[in-house]
Amino acid sequence: MVDVAILGYGTVGSGVVEVLTKNEESINKKAGKKIKIKYVLDLKDFPGSPIEDVLTKDYDTIINDPDVKVIAEVMGGVEPAYTFVKKALLNNKSVVTSNKELVARHGAELLKIARQRDINFLFEASVGGGIPIIRPLNQSLTADEIYEITGILNGTTNFILSKMADEGLDFNTVLKEAQDKGYAERNPEADVEGFDACRKIAILSSLAFGMHVDFEDIYTEGITKVSDLDMAYAKKLGYDIKLLATSKKKNDKVYAMVAPTMIGGEHPLSNVNGVFNAIFVKGNVIGDVMFYGKGAGKLPTASAVVADMVDAVKHIKRNIVSFWSTKKMELMDINEVLSRYFIRVTPQSRKEAHDTIGTIFGDVDYVKIDEAKEEMAFVTPEGTEGALKDQVEQLKAHKDMIDVISVIRIEK
Amino acid sequence: MVDVAILGYGTVGSGVVEVLTKNEESINKKAGKKIKIKYVLDLKDFPGSPIEDVLTKDYDTIINDPDVKVIAEVMGGVEPAYTFVKKALLNNKSVVTSNKELVARHGAELLKIARQRDINFLFEASVGGGIPIIRPLNQSLTADEIYEITGILNGTTNFILSKMADEGLDFNTVLKEAQDKGYAERNPEADVEGFDACRKIAILSSLAFGMHVDFEDIYTEGITKVSDLDMAYAKKLGYDIKLLATSKKKNDKVYAMVAPTMIGGEHPLSNVNGVFNAIFVKGNVIGDVMFYGKGAGKLPTASAVVADMVDAVKHIKRNIVSFWSTKKMELMDINEVLSRYFIRVTPQSRKEAHDTIGTIFGDVDYVKIDEAKEEMAFVTPEGTEGALKDQVEQLKAHKDMIDVISVIRIEK
Repeated sequence: MVDVAILGYGTVGSGVVEVLTKNEESINKKAGKKIKIKYVLDLKDFPGSPIEDVLTKDYDTIINDPDVKVIAEVMGGVEPAYTFVKKALLNNKSVVTSNKELVARHGAELLKIARQRDINFLFEASVGGGIPIIRPLNQSLTADEIYEITGILNGTTNFILSKMADEGLDFNTVLKEAQDKGYAERNPEADVEGFDACRKIAILSSLAFGMHVDFEDIYTEGITKVSDLDMAYAKKLGYDIKLLATSKKKNDKVYAMVAPTMIGGEHPLSNVNGVFNAIFVKGNVIGDVMFYGKGAGKLPTASAVVADMVDAVKHIKRNIVSFWSTKKMELMDINEVLSRYFIRVTPQSRKEAHDTIGTIFGDVDYVKIDEAKEEMAFVTPEGTEGALKDQVEQLKAHKDMIDVISVIRIEK
Repeated sequence: MVDVAILGYGTVGSGVVEVLTKNEESINKKAGKKIKIKYVLDLKDFPGSPIEDVLTKDYDTIINDPDVKVIAEVMGGVEPAYTFVKKALLNNKSVVTSNKELVARHGAELLKIARQRDINFLFEASVGGGIPIIRPLNQSLTADEIYEITGILNGTTNFILSKMADEGLDFNTVLKEAQDKGYAERNPEADVEGFDACRKIAILSSLAFGMHVDFEDIYTEGITKVSDLDMAYAKKLGYDIKLLATSKKKNDKVYAMVAPTMIGGEHPLSNVNGVFNAIFVKGNVIGDVMFYGKGAGKLPTASAVVADMVDAVKHIKRNIVSFWSTKKMELMDINEVLSRYFIRVTPQSRKEAHDTIGTIFGDVDYVKIDEAKEEMAFVTPEGTEGALKDQVEQLKAHKDMIDVISVIRIEK
């Protein structure tokens, strides 16, 4: 038997208890030992709940109990999670977590402590909810050198974009519906501004490339400016608009970015709709692989947390190796990255605008939709981000005759 | 340093050598030790090839070399692979293999030998080529009770069906093109009759449900009868036709089947096209997850073989647990499975045929396409396979007035 503790009895924490109870028999069989929940830490009381007897408000009780070998941290947020997790590892207890803020910020350090003590720090649930991606990256794709990871890593924004595309609704209408349904927070900033996806791609990039990718270095753009007309143009062009979190290696340099992006209908990610997530990986041997599933939610996330607990129990006093050094990776300047832009403008005079656009961008492809006859929209030739941004600034300088409404990247 | 041997220098074997050479540095880092190819076994000579110096025709040299800790069997076929692999395991050498025939037939026994000797028998490459599926099933989805696995497990047939759908071509034309391109064998039976997919779903089912599923018990139907008109009807109905290998648990009973099946455009598997494979898994906690990638080919397959070699090297003298007992699983009678059929007939008299169809099947949904105005086609209500087959027989009995052209299942 192995005693475990769960830090936090919120959505994920109660899901972990539910999963451990529901599938007790098969989980214990796979772990090779009976897993017993000895403590649940929470500041609230839960009278009448199944964990009433094991509830504690005192972390020291847990940390000082030598029988507790595995701790699941499912509180979220950097503090006090970081202090708790570090203390647990320093007391030779393996930790599993669903906490992407914690992992993105302190993952490298916590992995190092676990490695030094022959215990484990596991975080499958921190990216892609239940989708197995951390373990495959660490243990399955070991024959490959990975050169691209591109993911739809946030279910809330994917739900919003899918619904905008399907029903022609605008961002605010769909956001409100998502909030009413509980798919989006009352304060949706972390999701819609791309901050959540940014932390997740930082974690995946760090694992894939073996050095610490600081999420604060990653260019991040949210979906709040994507409009129903952008969606209509995308459809006309044969594209979907998705919030892509991407990280690519080119000539030994890595760049990473989170941004709403138009992708072609043939790309496997374009068919990932609603609250689903997917992570698309390119390796120099395996080619393209993709992992798909529910990226959030109580039970899918709990499934990943419990799978990590099983692994931690199977590997008591044996570190599962992963390659994420504390050495910081200097990312490639995003201005060097090649891209194409889709741009919408409202012209004063079509003729003049046409000439100006030609002068600035060269040979662009125009696209028209019935819903916006007064606009001009076009796709630029390929250029570096730096050059394209400059060109957009030049266009904006003509504000007496052209109003730039929208700029969206196109995945090549 | 760990010495390894490779049995077979065909497509996959040469791919394994290529991958080990190409990514030598990162592979050795992930394995924690240098992997050295000490022997390649093949009956042919390969003068001037990179493995000339390590080539041997004598298996006993390998088996009697105490330095060889890991053997990759990539010859294919049951014999002599089975004899070689068993001997290797009995000599305490871990074995990794890409050989689905071997694994489907003898997997349970070989896993047992490996377990008893604290070594490993790994076979990620035997299903889905490079797609990580065996390891995720064994190690990631451990919190779940899996109740469905449905896969597109054969790239050749998926290429053929995708091309028929996209270009309106008939089976034989596309098969010939696939053969010319090297996507299909000169003798394509194993692929197009579903035998290959059958072995793979047997392996996945055995792992997911923990008992030995005998591939010979699995109902298997190939794609040779699927016509361009069937494709046109499917499109009209909003479906794709895919060769699905499926295994589902219902009320503690499991059934498994390989058959061309119509699936809706919303199903993630419907977007898996060309030579790509995908495995869709349902768990009672995680919900739906899918794994996607190249299901065959020299380098993707070699990627999985080498990833297994890395794992075997990391786990010398330590068995990686999997749950596939030698106990045989009695599958549920397929006649009890619920299904809907799509049926095409050529009637002598439409009125009479209409009445007969109504009498036999009850309330069916008719569907019409311009390409086949003289036909009648319909979708039956849901019924058991047993009942539906009976009804088709009854219909066929009216052969003076109705000619049954085509019967295809519809995924619910």
